[in-house]
Amino acid sequence: MLILRDAFAGLTRFDEFQKSLGIAPNMLTRRLAALVDAGMLERRRYSARPPRDEYLLTVRGRDFHTVLMALLAFGNRHFAPEGASVMIVDAATGAPAEPIFVDRHSGRPLVEPYYRLAAGPAATAATTARLAQRGRSSTPTDGLRECRP
Amino acid sequence: MLILRDAFAGLTRFDEFQKSLGIAPNMLTRRLAALVDAGMLERRRYSARPPRDEYLLTVRGRDFHTVLMALLAFGNRHFAPEGASVMIVDAATGAPAEPIFVDRHSGRPLVEPYYRLAAGPAATAATTARLAQRGRSSTPTDGLRECRP
Repeated sequence: MLILRDAFAGLTRFDEFQKSLGIAPNMLTRRLAALVDAGMLERRRYSARPPRDEYLLTVRGRDFHTVLMALLAFGNRHFAPEGASVMIVDAATGAPAEPIFVDRHSGRPLVEPYYRLAAGPAATAATTARLAQRGRSSTPTDGLRECRP
Repeated sequence: MLILRDAFAGLTRFDEFQKSLGIAPNMLTRRLAALVDAGMLERRRYSARPPRDEYLLTVRGRDFHTVLMALLAFGNRHFAPEGASVMIVDAATGAPAEPIFVDRHSGRPLVEPYYRLAAGPAATAATTARLAQRGRSSTPTDGLRECRP
């Protein structure tokens, strides 16, 4: 996750990641390989002699940005008693943004009762049953919740 | 993460989590304790004899919902070749929703050039320098990206 964060920040090279993250080289090698295997990063040779690779975000890797932004906002709200380290701000005014999820099509916040979780085409019977049961009940922990309580 | 997912689905008891996740009891005990320590779950005794606890989402735990929704949408887009197992849908029409992040205040998507990352009050000198540098450049991996490419 931190490697991806740094990749979004523009880092591409092994030594850049290592300097930023301060982890052991063999650990970093493994993590980078795992991200390449998962299709999140692409390895590209930028020097033949000596052989050197750089790591670039793929389309899939770029799309992980939503998850990182959600984590950033969550961490700022709950695990930054001394204040945020990195914030999303309005570029014009500098005012901190407050990210919420909406449906791209309707523009409406993804909250009940307008949106719900539903079984998809690959749902198992257990998942389908669980979601159907949730649809019928309305305990405080059920269903879709607003992005911020 | 999967424990939290199940907590959002309404599960509260040890045996419910174990049945859902199929992990070893000692592992589940450790994970639940870690979530309680992190303030994501609250332990509540619901039976004195025998002593039995249930685990309820705290306000902080509920707020993690955004991250789970972001992961759900990301996973559906990239790691569900056979189709989604769980989807967010419009409750009225059943149409799959496409979650994007917007600023609650302005309603605008959190994309450049309208929004950017900025150093917060607790930023280190290195973070401040890194973000300032990103503000000046505009390589394809820089700055805030749209939620979907």
